[in-house]
This record gives sequence, C-alpha cells and structure tokens, in this order.
Amino acid sequence: MSHNQIIALDAMGGDFGPSVTVPAAGLALKELRTGIGFIFFGDEKKIRPLLEKDAALYAVSSIRHTDKVIASDEKPSTALRSGRDSSMRLAIDAVRDGEAGSVVSAGNTGALMATAKMVLKCLPGISRPAIASVLPTINGDTVMLDLGANIICDAEILVQFAVLGSVYAKVVKGIPAPSVGLLNVGAEAMKGPDQVRQAAAILSSVKFPGRYTGFVEGDDIAKGAVDVVVTDGFTGNVALKVTEGVGKFASHAMKATFTSSFMARIGALFAYGGIKRLKKKMDPRFYNGGMFLGVDGICVKSHGGMDEYGFSRAILVAANLVERGYNKRVALEIEQVMSQESFVSGIAAQASAAAES
Amino acid sequence: MSHNQIIALDAMGGDFGPSVTVPAAGLALKELRTGIGFIFFGDEKKIRPLLEKDAALYAVSSIRHTDKVIASDEKPSTALRSGRDSSMRLAIDAVRDGEAGSVVSAGNTGALMATAKMVLKCLPGISRPAIASVLPTINGDTVMLDLGANIICDAEILVQFAVLGSVYAKVVKGIPAPSVGLLNVGAEAMKGPDQVRQAAAILSSVKFPGRYTGFVEGDDIAKGAVDVVVTDGFTGNVALKVTEGVGKFASHAMKATFTSSFMARIGALFAYGGIKRLKKKMDPRFYNGGMFLGVDGICVKSHGGMDEYGFSRAILVAANLVERGYNKRVALEIEQVMSQESFVSGIAAQASAAAES
Repeated sequence: MSHNQIIALDAMGGDFGPSVTVPAAGLALKELRTGIGFIFFGDEKKIRPLLEKDAALYAVSSIRHTDKVIASDEKPSTALRSGRDSSMRLAIDAVRDGEAGSVVSAGNTGALMATAKMVLKCLPGISRPAIASVLPTINGDTVMLDLGANIICDAEILVQFAVLGSVYAKVVKGIPAPSVGLLNVGAEAMKGPDQVRQAAAILSSVKFPGRYTGFVEGDDIAKGAVDVVVTDGFTGNVALKVTEGVGKFASHAMKATFTSSFMARIGALFAYGGIKRLKKKMDPRFYNGGMFLGVDGICVKSHGGMDEYGFSRAILVAANLVERGYNKRVALEIEQVMSQESFVSGIAAQASAAAES
Repeated sequence: MSHNQIIALDAMGGDFGPSVTVPAAGLALKELRTGIGFIFFGDEKKIRPLLEKDAALYAVSSIRHTDKVIASDEKPSTALRSGRDSSMRLAIDAVRDGEAGSVVSAGNTGALMATAKMVLKCLPGISRPAIASVLPTINGDTVMLDLGANIICDAEILVQFAVLGSVYAKVVKGIPAPSVGLLNVGAEAMKGPDQVRQAAAILSSVKFPGRYTGFVEGDDIAKGAVDVVVTDGFTGNVALKVTEGVGKFASHAMKATFTSSFMARIGALFAYGGIKRLKKKMDPRFYNGGMFLGVDGICVKSHGGMDEYGFSRAILVAANLVERGYNKRVALEIEQVMSQESFVSGIAAQASAAAES
C-alpha cells in the first residue's frame, strides 16, 4: 500500500466526533478503488468500537490514540502552540512524515489552516494557500477560491489562486481549458480595486492552465458563467455565506409554500418525486469539502456540522485530489507561469504602483 | 403644492424609457396621498402622448423637454462633463433648485451617483453617500448599504453608513432602536480587516440612532439577523448580486421541478395559490429602489430593466423618504454622533493606526 493511498482522519473534529467520522470513512470506502486505507487519530476507546462494527473498514484502518483535541473555538495561535499532541495536528504530521497522502478534518478551520501551513508549508511558487470549494450552479459546477484563508490579497496572490483553481478544474474536473473569472463589481476594465485590475492585467497576458475571461459579478457565480471564480478571502467568504443564507431562505420559503394550505399539501404530494430530486441536487452535503489548495500536502476541511454522508464526501474530495496528482501539477504549472516575462513585468508594475500610492 | 411634493423623473432612463416611466408614475400616483406632482424630463414627443392617456396623472404633471440622454454605458466622468442638458442631469438640477423634493432615475448608476454628488453635494457631516436597498429575509426586511458607491471605505465612512442606515430603519420603517451589524467573516472581535474592526470599536462606544449588535456574516443577511447591514461598496455589491443570482437559481430550479413530470405538473396546479403568494413575496420589483443615502436631496435609482410596477415602487421609495423627513433627521443625528468624545477618539485612533502601518 503506497502512503498516497492512506488517508489521515482527524477522528475527533466536528460537532459529533468519531460517531460521524468513523462510519463516514466506511461510506467513503465503498466509493473508493481498492488499496485505500485510513489512520484514525483520536480517542481509541471511542474509535475502536465504532470501527469494529464495519469489517471492511476495520481491515484497512489503524488507530493512533491521543486524548488531546483542538476545541472548535480555539484561537489558531493557541492551537499551534499547545496543540502538538492533538488529533488534528497528528493527522497533519502523518502527511508531512509520508505516512499518509492526505488529511481530512471537520475541526476548527482557522487552527487547521494555521497548522497545515506551518507543518506542511506551501507548494513551491505559492505564497499563500487558499480555501476552495465546489458550488452548484444553473450551468454545472463552479470552483471558487479563496473562501476565507486570506482577508487581503494582492494581485500576485490572486494570480496564484487563478492557477490553483484552474489546475483543479483541469486535472480533477477534467475541463481542458477552464474559464477563469475575477470577482468584481462590474465587467468594465476600469472597475474595482487596484489589485483586482492588476491581477486582470497579468492574467490577460500570461499563459496559465485556464482561460482568463474577464471580471465576473456576484450573480455570475450561481449562473455558472465560469469554471473558476477567483477572489480574496474576505469577499469569497461573504459570497459563500450569502449563497448558503439565500439557499436556506429559498428552501424555507418553499417549505412554507407547500404547507400553507390543504391544496398546497396535496400539490406537494403529487410533486414529491420532483421535490426529492431537487433536494438531492441542492444537497449541501454533496458539495462538502473545503480544499486547502497550495499547501504541500492534500488537506480537506469538512463542515463541522456534517453527518456521515457529508463527511464521506469530504474524504472523497481528498482521495480525488491525491489520485489526480493535483499538487504535482500545480508545482509544475506555477513554475511555468512565474518564468514568463509577462508575469514578471506585471508583478513589477504592481509593486511600483504600490510604492507610489 | 410644496416643492417637496414634486417628484422629478428622468423619463428617459432605463431600458424602456417613457413607455415604462410614464405609466409607472400613474401607478405610483394611486398609492400616494393627494398633493403629489411630477415633472418628466425628456423627449416631449414621446412623453406627452403617454401622459395624455392617464387623466389623473396628466393633471399633476409637467414636462421639461430635452433631447439629450445619458447612455447606459457612459462613463461617469463623461456624463458629468457633457451631460449638462441630459434628462438625468436636469431632473437632479430640479432638486437642487428647489423645484422638486426628490428625483428618480432608472439610468446609468455610476453617472447618476456622480451627478447627484456633484450637483446636490453631501449632507453636512457625511463624507460619502452610499447606495442602500431593502432586502427580503426570513425574518422581515433588512436594509443593506453600501451596495457599490464606494469600493474602499475606512472606519469613519462605515460609521457614517451605520448612521444613514439606522436613521432609515428608524424614521422610514418605524423601528424604535434598529439593530445594526457590520458584515464580516466571523463573529469574533479579532476577525476581519482593520477598518471593520475599528468601525466596530467606534460603534460599540458611540451613541447613535441604532443599536450596534456586532459582526454579521453573509448568511445573516437572508436570516434577517439585524435591521441594518453595513459594509463597503465592493462587498455589498457582491453580496447583493450573489443574492440575486442564487434567487434566480432557486426559482429556475423550482420551475424545473414543477415541469419535470406529469405528476409534478399536477402538483403545481394544486399548489398554485401558494406558489403565487411565494412569487409575490419574493418579487424583486417590490424591492426595487436603490436609495442614495447621504446626498443632500432625495435620489432613488431604479433597476434599468424594471417594468411599470417595478419603477412605480422606486417612486414610492423616494416619496416615502421625503415624507418622513429622512435627510433632516440624518443631518441632526450625524451632528450628535460627531460631537461625542468616543467618536472623536475612535477616529483619532484609526488615523494613528493608519499612519503607523
């Protein structure tokens, strides 16, 4: 068994700990090709009985016991300082040490990102990792980044995100020349903050794995106007959470509609099959799995409140990134981008503009 | 007839010009108390025949002819320079000259904001106007600002927006102590960019017409967690457009669901009444009307693509702001805020932090 086929799981992360993470691994295992194995990091007394219930999973799993858990409200800095023996930290260490090819955790996002950056470091050529996620749209799926790792991003970072996102769309989603848009407040070239316009100038002239198609606006995300949406972590986080909020509002309104009267309840019965398919299509559990792109080691974050199915989807995201050789491809592509004259001169122009202002 | 009761209409603005703006005024007139009148700015040959079809409207309206129209893709700077005789500019001039109490346009947003700022100036104590709009939520309505007038905002500007928004919620919506939240990427005090944390510090200590309740996240908007959401124009514009995009996605998905099978179509027939009510509740036309808060003169922007009903809603927004004496109240409240020691020291702390960085 190659270490790449081993997935390190922070068994204690999330709202439910092993009672979700262990059966989730069992669910994921059924979807994965043979050869995959798991290491569960956490409280052995809680993990073992759950593991023993699933013979197939038990056969490919091992447990590394630890009592320590990073609390969901722990500050990232505290987690770094005093989280050395935590289930999260040990799971990440396993990737650094070549015992596992990827790590999945439903724990504290800030602590996970800080620890992953410190332990695994960034891929060569990448200055800051981004959190990326796949979103459903009217027109297929879209991958968006950054969703909150970096509050402020300069043009160079945004260009790196464009590379991270387009390599994902290319090698994982199989899109030959993924379209890439920069999130902005208008389509015209003069619109938006300096760093977004500077990133646009670089992406327009540099060769990279995607096709830069210009600025996109907030409503273009759900339209599926592009394969990859690039933005800073502040805007991306707001956009993601607005999407979640409006989605909940819509499902709340729909539920209210179909319980508003006797006739409406009958209508819902007739439309039951269609409503069920709609629910499945929009299921946030299906899209679970925030990818920490740019980290030198595959690291995926599950929502803390996910159930077994949701957490199993995050495991599949990690397994997929490993299988498609995502990180090797990024390292290759980013080197090619950085060696281009149009990239170097674009970054220089950005730096001199920043010095003047 | 007091000039306050006169509404200046840019008859030519928007995708459809007088064929929408004139009948829209007729619709609005039916909702308004007696004493209201209109001045239509634009092409008399197009306006007059439409006006003559509605006797009640005709009786309270006048026309100021001009051939000039600001194009929807005109740069704001060009609109300022060469738009002197345009329907938009003349309608705004009418407010400055005391002929009208408010102006409504469905024209070019950038040109409208630039012209309104130049001609009408800001209210005393306000450095930058914001675009504000009312959004439907699970829990009543929420007003959000800025939606795109100011890409970058410092803490002082965000505090001014909090005053503009809370005075709106108080005097127009009638909420005695409106709750105000700053849009951010987490609820903890240490989260987010400097200017957002600095604005939070000032709003926590200063007395203003609203109650500052802390940071809100993207999903809190649709939840209706607060009465007023304050953010910079970049983030606010993205949040608004994401809301529109996801709303369209949801309605598209729902339509697809109820035409997906014979059974589903029957279901839709039974649920017809409920679906109709839902559509009405979520009707974007109902919420049409971007308010240019902080301008010394009431100025409301309609979506360019709105029909008669939608444009009539924007007219009602303008009439309401005038009737409630919104601008007078803002001038009063902002003066009281600025005279407080905690405001002055907060702004000083912000300035020294900026100088250090």
